[in-house]
Amino acid sequence: MSAYDEASLELHAKYGGKLEVKGVVPIDDRETLSVVYTPGVAAPCLAIAKDPSLARKLTIKGRSVAVVTDGTAVLGLGDIGPLAAMPVMEGKAMLFKEFAGIDAFPIALATKDVDEIVATVKNIAPGFGGINLEDISAPRCFEIERRLTEELDIPVFHDDQHGTAIVVLAGLINACKAVGRDIAEARVVFSGAGAAGVAVAKLLRAYGVKDVTLCDSRGVIHPSRTDLDDSKRGLLAWSNPRGLSGTLADALKGAGVLIGLSKAGVVTKEMVASMAPGPIVFAMANPDPEIMPDDAKAAGAYVVATGRSDFPNQINNLLAFPGVFRGILDAGATRVTEKMKLSAAVALAALVTEPTTERIIPDALDRGATAAVAEAVSRAARE
Amino acid sequence: MSAYDEASLELHAKYGGKLEVKGVVPIDDRETLSVVYTPGVAAPCLAIAKDPSLARKLTIKGRSVAVVTDGTAVLGLGDIGPLAAMPVMEGKAMLFKEFAGIDAFPIALATKDVDEIVATVKNIAPGFGGINLEDISAPRCFEIERRLTEELDIPVFHDDQHGTAIVVLAGLINACKAVGRDIAEARVVFSGAGAAGVAVAKLLRAYGVKDVTLCDSRGVIHPSRTDLDDSKRGLLAWSNPRGLSGTLADALKGAGVLIGLSKAGVVTKEMVASMAPGPIVFAMANPDPEIMPDDAKAAGAYVVATGRSDFPNQINNLLAFPGVFRGILDAGATRVTEKMKLSAAVALAALVTEPTTERIIPDALDRGATAAVAEAVSRAARE
Repeated sequence: MSAYDEASLELHAKYGGKLEVKGVVPIDDRETLSVVYTPGVAAPCLAIAKDPSLARKLTIKGRSVAVVTDGTAVLGLGDIGPLAAMPVMEGKAMLFKEFAGIDAFPIALATKDVDEIVATVKNIAPGFGGINLEDISAPRCFEIERRLTEELDIPVFHDDQHGTAIVVLAGLINACKAVGRDIAEARVVFSGAGAAGVAVAKLLRAYGVKDVTLCDSRGVIHPSRTDLDDSKRGLLAWSNPRGLSGTLADALKGAGVLIGLSKAGVVTKEMVASMAPGPIVFAMANPDPEIMPDDAKAAGAYVVATGRSDFPNQINNLLAFPGVFRGILDAGATRVTEKMKLSAAVALAALVTEPTTERIIPDALDRGATAAVAEAVSRAARE
Repeated sequence: MSAYDEASLELHAKYGGKLEVKGVVPIDDRETLSVVYTPGVAAPCLAIAKDPSLARKLTIKGRSVAVVTDGTAVLGLGDIGPLAAMPVMEGKAMLFKEFAGIDAFPIALATKDVDEIVATVKNIAPGFGGINLEDISAPRCFEIERRLTEELDIPVFHDDQHGTAIVVLAGLINACKAVGRDIAEARVVFSGAGAAGVAVAKLLRAYGVKDVTLCDSRGVIHPSRTDLDDSKRGLLAWSNPRGLSGTLADALKGAGVLIGLSKAGVVTKEMVASMAPGPIVFAMANPDPEIMPDDAKAAGAYVVATGRSDFPNQINNLLAFPGVFRGILDAGATRVTEKMKLSAAVALAALVTEPTTERIIPDALDRGATAAVAEAVSRAARE
């Protein structure tokens, strides 16, 4: 629990949640009522019935996103259920509006069944311009996202995966720049092979990082493991080129980069000290990182990034998701492609003109980040 | 199409729909971000995980309503589909906020299948405080409402049925008062036995009206009809006490009240002239009534009501639905009962202290109506 707990409970209780839904004009006379509602409203209804593509111009479909969760992987709190996930979903919706002018609404699902989730999201999709999947546990999140992407004509984006991947890649581009290394040649080891870990690994690979090895709580992911789910088995085809096995500590020996998307405290000073000289450590478990920045630094890390705002180099999805959806909606794109994600990461990295070990990524509240990501995604969509 | 068409198309295109979703506070510094989002947001999440009833206090569940449609019975336009129904749903949501401070969001469904609609609404229900079903065609709307009411722990209200019923009963109470007749003894004939017609008939009966006869497009609903669906068959047990048969014109002979919830122009001057002296005519087909007020008056009607704002006595659901949900949410009720609907109608009627033939119901934009209905519903819920 954080220092902000009391203030947060107070704010949530004061307003009864954090979102409000209101009309763009006040309804204070008969004239306005007749325009926004009957009888005038029949005109846009009939226009859309005739040409469904007009829905993006005449309704909120052009700027609305459903923030969908089943509450199974909320923050670091785990499976606390859809109702308890609502404060996070409302916060996300606030950020969509504040940073990208997108009108997002939380949809907390009463089911964890993959088929039911897919059917439900498809059934409610018509009024939305996009679907942001949020805090759905792996490996179900992979199938849900894949099927919805295939079956819907609006973009589907699992922020825990791809938002994280965009910001981590941006940070890593600049971290390598700051210490004068070639990111393509970096030997990268992951602590964590859940939704975020797998997505980040894939995006690093797409960017050109050749040597990527992932570890989960049982150690290095390698071909002799018999306990791997589909998403982890998918990694065997291209990750772990050295054929490493054993524990995270074994894999880290001599590695240049640690990407932590796992649990508090699982990385020790000794592990960091065993890495190649001057390693880059992204310890992003929330709220408590895999290793505290001071300890990582003391063990020799040149660059340390976390998910926290009280240390330098905060890896925060807020730098990506509002801009990603803004860009997609602006371009009228129906899918989020790898190219869009890579472009977004590169654009985000470029905002820090001279990266240093203490500044590899823009501030989380930098509205320029949303604009730059939106522009990059929109451009990639149009190309 | 109406005189407001152009203005409506213009407004919808200008804003891209009519709703916006925003946070209750701006997020302009790290402090606020930490309170509305991570890390502070974990506190309300954990509080709700421990005690789910807190969701009504700490999230929008305490004041949010899903406005759900499948687009099968939109205004008088019929089955124009979920996308084309969105302007109506957005307008409804605007009215919820404007009149009752309720945060409503449109959910346009990609399915017309009753089982799928029920499953979908149940799956998205956790984050909402209530479900407003809208513009779903009969007889499917009856089963959908019944099953959702049985299976959900939040109130479900089909406004086309019950909102209409409340306002019609209120209007009829005052119409009878204005002409000095006993509503319980009124002989009432319906043109229309769809969702609204059936619901109005049931509420009139619950209020004490004894002689109610319904007609659909094929004539009087009576026991020898073999073409009746379940909802119409259900009427046989108590309606049409005189055992009438034949056409609407046959049924209207000697009747005191006509309730039209059917189609433009189906009632002639001759039919009105054949009713008992000084009849009460509610001709509520939209936008064009069953008979125009001037014609009804010319044929002898003492009181005429329509759905239109350009004639006296506008029967508008806006007088009921915001207050009904406000009252339910205030009382923490889980169902909408007959007693609540009757109380709402009586409270609404009482707002017109001295009803006349030209004024039987408050103005549609009268905010006092929302307050009075909310108070009545809330009181009925608590009793």
